[in-house]
Amino acid sequence: MQRKGNLMTYRPDIKVFDATIRDGGLVNNFRFKDEFVKALYLANLRAGVDYMEMGYLADTDIFKREDFGDWKFCREADLRRIVGNNETDLKLSVMADVGRTNLQRDLLPREESVLDMVRVATYINTMPAAIEMIEYAASLGYETTCNIMAISKANDTDIEEALALLAQSPVNAVYIVDSYGSLFPEQVQNLTVKYIEAMEPAGKSVGIHAHNNQQLAFANTVESCTMGASFLDATVGSMGRGAGNCAMELLLGFLKNPKYNITPVLRFYESYMVPLREAGLKWGYDVQYLLTGKMNLHPSSAIAFTKEDRRDYADFYHQLFDLEP
Amino acid sequence: MQRKGNLMTYRPDIKVFDATIRDGGLVNNFRFKDEFVKALYLANLRAGVDYMEMGYLADTDIFKREDFGDWKFCREADLRRIVGNNETDLKLSVMADVGRTNLQRDLLPREESVLDMVRVATYINTMPAAIEMIEYAASLGYETTCNIMAISKANDTDIEEALALLAQSPVNAVYIVDSYGSLFPEQVQNLTVKYIEAMEPAGKSVGIHAHNNQQLAFANTVESCTMGASFLDATVGSMGRGAGNCAMELLLGFLKNPKYNITPVLRFYESYMVPLREAGLKWGYDVQYLLTGKMNLHPSSAIAFTKEDRRDYADFYHQLFDLEP
Repeated sequence: MQRKGNLMTYRPDIKVFDATIRDGGLVNNFRFKDEFVKALYLANLRAGVDYMEMGYLADTDIFKREDFGDWKFCREADLRRIVGNNETDLKLSVMADVGRTNLQRDLLPREESVLDMVRVATYINTMPAAIEMIEYAASLGYETTCNIMAISKANDTDIEEALALLAQSPVNAVYIVDSYGSLFPEQVQNLTVKYIEAMEPAGKSVGIHAHNNQQLAFANTVESCTMGASFLDATVGSMGRGAGNCAMELLLGFLKNPKYNITPVLRFYESYMVPLREAGLKWGYDVQYLLTGKMNLHPSSAIAFTKEDRRDYADFYHQLFDLEP
Repeated sequence: MQRKGNLMTYRPDIKVFDATIRDGGLVNNFRFKDEFVKALYLANLRAGVDYMEMGYLADTDIFKREDFGDWKFCREADLRRIVGNNETDLKLSVMADVGRTNLQRDLLPREESVLDMVRVATYINTMPAAIEMIEYAASLGYETTCNIMAISKANDTDIEEALALLAQSPVNAVYIVDSYGSLFPEQVQNLTVKYIEAMEPAGKSVGIHAHNNQQLAFANTVESCTMGASFLDATVGSMGRGAGNCAMELLLGFLKNPKYNITPVLRFYESYMVPLREAGLKWGYDVQYLLTGKMNLHPSSAIAFTKEDRRDYADFYHQLFDLEP
């Protein structure tokens, strides 16, 4: 499999996808101020970002409104408070978790919504439910993606079967999601080739959503991109669950297409992300996340270690062996 | 060029090289307490690390002793205060900068020293002086390396000529040094292939010393390793100038050789590196370093930005355009 493009050219198929509110919302229970979300929206517009994820479309029968900010639910009136009618080139997305979303009740027909895309997040064993959601969202007129989470835990046969199902669905793109931040660049390359080979003949794209447990989120995003992935997820300042994501500022610094502009993101970073950190919100690479990533474990124990302000990394490491599946 | 080895096997030629005191010394002017250096020495021994760099062999005619800690100079009595006669498998190294070292006066014959290796650091245009130093150190019985700094600024012809000279020298290994943290994994792969092709026929090894400006130090080290580099530099907690280096804990988490053990490094990290940070020493990835790395500039302006506690990343970015060569 050949690399696509080189370091001096750019590929017009690439889509930069901002997931700051959605993955970053896992850090602060989606309690972003309107001013923050609006400033990010404007920064993305000016930076040439292609898609912005506004949050989750969570089911209020499962999650209480008062336990979260508005971006856990992304109701139409809340979205329009920020983006008006979004008469721009920046497309808006929402994430729908299998088992935690009521699309039939909560998703408007596309022509009544400012949303352009629904990304269905699923583990590989709930693929039939995911495909049902994708078909429903597509029937309402939305672009759709399927984000297969925790792919580092899936076996090759299951991945191949899932991709075969998705190739026959209306989905527009399928994402490699390294939820545990445990994949090395070589593995990401191989997975990308597998996804491309399954999806490209069906006219579908591939995406990459990386986590930074081993300081590889950016490297893995670049490697996946050079092997053909088009949808590249990033968050400003890496804001996201646990070790965070591929940093938008790193990604925009790498991409050669002159439509992308890092400066509005730097301005947003200094005005809005630095204050969040200074107010005590914690995310990003630290040794506890390296350890869960290296062991291919869910980051929940490392997140608890962080919240408890523990420093006993060696003891934590040896406690993780009791969690190994 | 084929990858060497895979993610399940290990290569016995790999040497893990701890540069914490030497590159980390650039953060605190080499003012490490003896207890710190001794604890790191013991951690490296227990972790199976192959080489430990004790610092620089700086010329006291150029640098005043009182301006720096002992590890800027690495005199024999100071070394022996920490390692005794070093009757262990851990080899000890010192770095000698071209133009800032007086080897004839300051380097003892190997049999009178606890040092095993001299690493000569040079820019590509001072290669003749570097080779003279390598020949002298080799004549005293030392293993030697040549660390060609700022390689992202060198042109291909100069690199090829330098490698041809080194192939005929007594040097044991030649390092790719990404001083500015500006190389992407694909570029590191290509450079590694070039170095391997020039050095392997002469029976010499290749090494990689990466900086973390773009959060690529670990990824670049892994990529260089998979293409054949054997000497892999790392520092505990990434401690090093500016954005720091490849983290030892990441590297040991990646390598599959059971001789390596991450636990002593984690214990050292929690007992000695966390307190250094809490005492206010600053190093490691931040946006200002990404910007100098992306622009292939020396990190000095980003280090000044950090010291001044500035937050105006966007203005800093645009000031850098005035520095472009």
